[in-house]
Amino acid sequence: MAYFDNAATTYPKPDEVYSFMSEFYRNHGGSAGRGDYGLANKAKGIIDETRSLLKDLLHCPAKQVVFTPTATIALNMIIQGVIAGSAKNIYVSPFEHNAVTRILYHFEQLGKIKITDLAVSPLLEYDLERIRYQFDAVHPDMVIVSHASNVIGLIAPVEEIFALAKEYDAITLVDMAQTAGLVDLNVGLETIDYAVFAGHKTLLGPTGISGFLMKPTANLLPVIFGGTGYDSANQNMPDSLPEKYEMGTFNILGVSGLNAALKWIKERTVNQLYKEENDHREKLLQLLYEYPFLSVIGNIQGRKYVGIVSCRIDGISSDSAGSIFAENGIAVRTGLQCAPKAHKFLGTFPEGTIRFSVNCFTSENDFVELRNVLSYIQENL
Amino acid sequence: MAYFDNAATTYPKPDEVYSFMSEFYRNHGGSAGRGDYGLANKAKGIIDETRSLLKDLLHCPAKQVVFTPTATIALNMIIQGVIAGSAKNIYVSPFEHNAVTRILYHFEQLGKIKITDLAVSPLLEYDLERIRYQFDAVHPDMVIVSHASNVIGLIAPVEEIFALAKEYDAITLVDMAQTAGLVDLNVGLETIDYAVFAGHKTLLGPTGISGFLMKPTANLLPVIFGGTGYDSANQNMPDSLPEKYEMGTFNILGVSGLNAALKWIKERTVNQLYKEENDHREKLLQLLYEYPFLSVIGNIQGRKYVGIVSCRIDGISSDSAGSIFAENGIAVRTGLQCAPKAHKFLGTFPEGTIRFSVNCFTSENDFVELRNVLSYIQENL
Repeated sequence: MAYFDNAATTYPKPDEVYSFMSEFYRNHGGSAGRGDYGLANKAKGIIDETRSLLKDLLHCPAKQVVFTPTATIALNMIIQGVIAGSAKNIYVSPFEHNAVTRILYHFEQLGKIKITDLAVSPLLEYDLERIRYQFDAVHPDMVIVSHASNVIGLIAPVEEIFALAKEYDAITLVDMAQTAGLVDLNVGLETIDYAVFAGHKTLLGPTGISGFLMKPTANLLPVIFGGTGYDSANQNMPDSLPEKYEMGTFNILGVSGLNAALKWIKERTVNQLYKEENDHREKLLQLLYEYPFLSVIGNIQGRKYVGIVSCRIDGISSDSAGSIFAENGIAVRTGLQCAPKAHKFLGTFPEGTIRFSVNCFTSENDFVELRNVLSYIQENL
Repeated sequence: MAYFDNAATTYPKPDEVYSFMSEFYRNHGGSAGRGDYGLANKAKGIIDETRSLLKDLLHCPAKQVVFTPTATIALNMIIQGVIAGSAKNIYVSPFEHNAVTRILYHFEQLGKIKITDLAVSPLLEYDLERIRYQFDAVHPDMVIVSHASNVIGLIAPVEEIFALAKEYDAITLVDMAQTAGLVDLNVGLETIDYAVFAGHKTLLGPTGISGFLMKPTANLLPVIFGGTGYDSANQNMPDSLPEKYEMGTFNILGVSGLNAALKWIKERTVNQLYKEENDHREKLLQLLYEYPFLSVIGNIQGRKYVGIVSCRIDGISSDSAGSIFAENGIAVRTGLQCAPKAHKFLGTFPEGTIRFSVNCFTSENDFVELRNVLSYIQENL
């Protein structure tokens, strides 16, 4: 099988991830980071080291790492918590995933918030002048931007957007599900309040471990409650970080895999991994452009991208195309990719697209198999 | 090391859990159960099979399995969802964990609910007559019972309590974190609306995968929102189950481990595993009673228990005792075990207890090591 669905979950993981996770959980899995005995201390050690590795990777020694099971839960904790703290006017990029938009829609339906799209030009440029005009007209309480679109891979100029948002004292949230460990971003910037990461995507770790970075001074109201193995007599969530937002049993299996992945990334370096992914994206684009029946969506000269490319096939629905690829051993994702908002912006709603996503592990053989299937489709159109 | 902290997380897991999980994630980890290609179908197959295994184990073919990352998140989804649906009077057992009580306290502080403790006698008997009197006085909207206390292991007569609760049309929730796969309960009963399980405890699976059973007809309002890989154009959570409550990337690594664990349990049988754990509990009690400086808490003739025993040492704080055990290679949990409410009921608040928890894997050698340390403490008191 040729795997072109790395935007859903990266595969394979570095060998070190499988082997360390397996060894660690078998030999040290007897604790979820609580208790005071050997295994518990070993677990605590790995958790603490993983927090440090993340802070190093994202250049934010002074921020707090909070682990959550999924990026979706991280987004719920932050967005619902900020809304509970009375945020009303929320700006989002036009490329947000349902993990953001469904939360917002719920509160919009309740009449609690107003959602506005940040101005982006048809040439996919964030229009900072128009955004300033938007912010002047309706003061932003919160600004949410996906660092890279999960539909077309477009990288957003988060630093500029958030610098502007901070002129208006907005709370800022960058969703790095498609970029952490791949696109270098200084999360240590004062203008970034929250940055969400997904352990199993660009960070090359396993499913089940994700989280966010936050300013330790942020007053984020908790919206999920539970045991923390600490300050247990207190019936409120403890005030201390990260306990305030890390309730329930810690996924020590997941964090051990993420730990190994972060060490692997550190050795290879983020910039090298981006270079390799970008080379594979170029190769993918060249290949796709050879087949005139394919229309590539949203690839504009001069913009920056991660290794995600969406296209359509004239005369074939994206779901039918997906079946043809699947039957021929090519893993792609078709349809809306959980981002109907992005497709509305791109003009590909409600049909969606065929999404190919590469990364550093995409092989020559993957491209050969893809070429074979594209040629087969061309012959049978 | 002698491991007596199985109530926190069971350790070790059956060998099949480690090996299947490792093999599955390495060879089939390229999907989180979405998409239409081989790996995705393989992942879907394992997820579906795991749902079936759970329904078999808990005798509830007609109920819906919802996977969540942790039991804490399952409890938040159910309790917050039921409160959003206007439940006001909520009854709980006196043994609830912070995973329940901190959620409730939040809504009590907001003035939205009233919390009442179910009547339990000093001899640890649920007093059904008094509970009926309580329900007559204040009509129950929801009744929450931990199937077994995580402090003293006492098993609650869930069937009787819920049969009574249903006379008053209350919504019922049993927290099986310490019992699923260990204490046989017919979750198929009409009187049980929700049953929560924790994959990494008595189910012998890995951390990162838990969930709940529910009646497919229940109208539970979603409180966590996100992508479902399905019905993506809809900005509400889909109405279909389990998608309505399964947002974000599926933990396919975790579910593969749980799958292997459930097959292992099925082969050994729940009743056999309970017998083995209970034998180990008897052995543990005999050992503890040999040392007069230990006071066992809450062990009453005629009651039923899982393999959890709490005690105190006269003249030594439970935390100091915990350190002595830890230094001597005995893994126990001391303090409040995230259940201050239970300790208040038992008269062990705020100091807490030393908790020993055994299971089928507790070995002769574990008991020998424990005896050595207890003798050492006795000599040095």
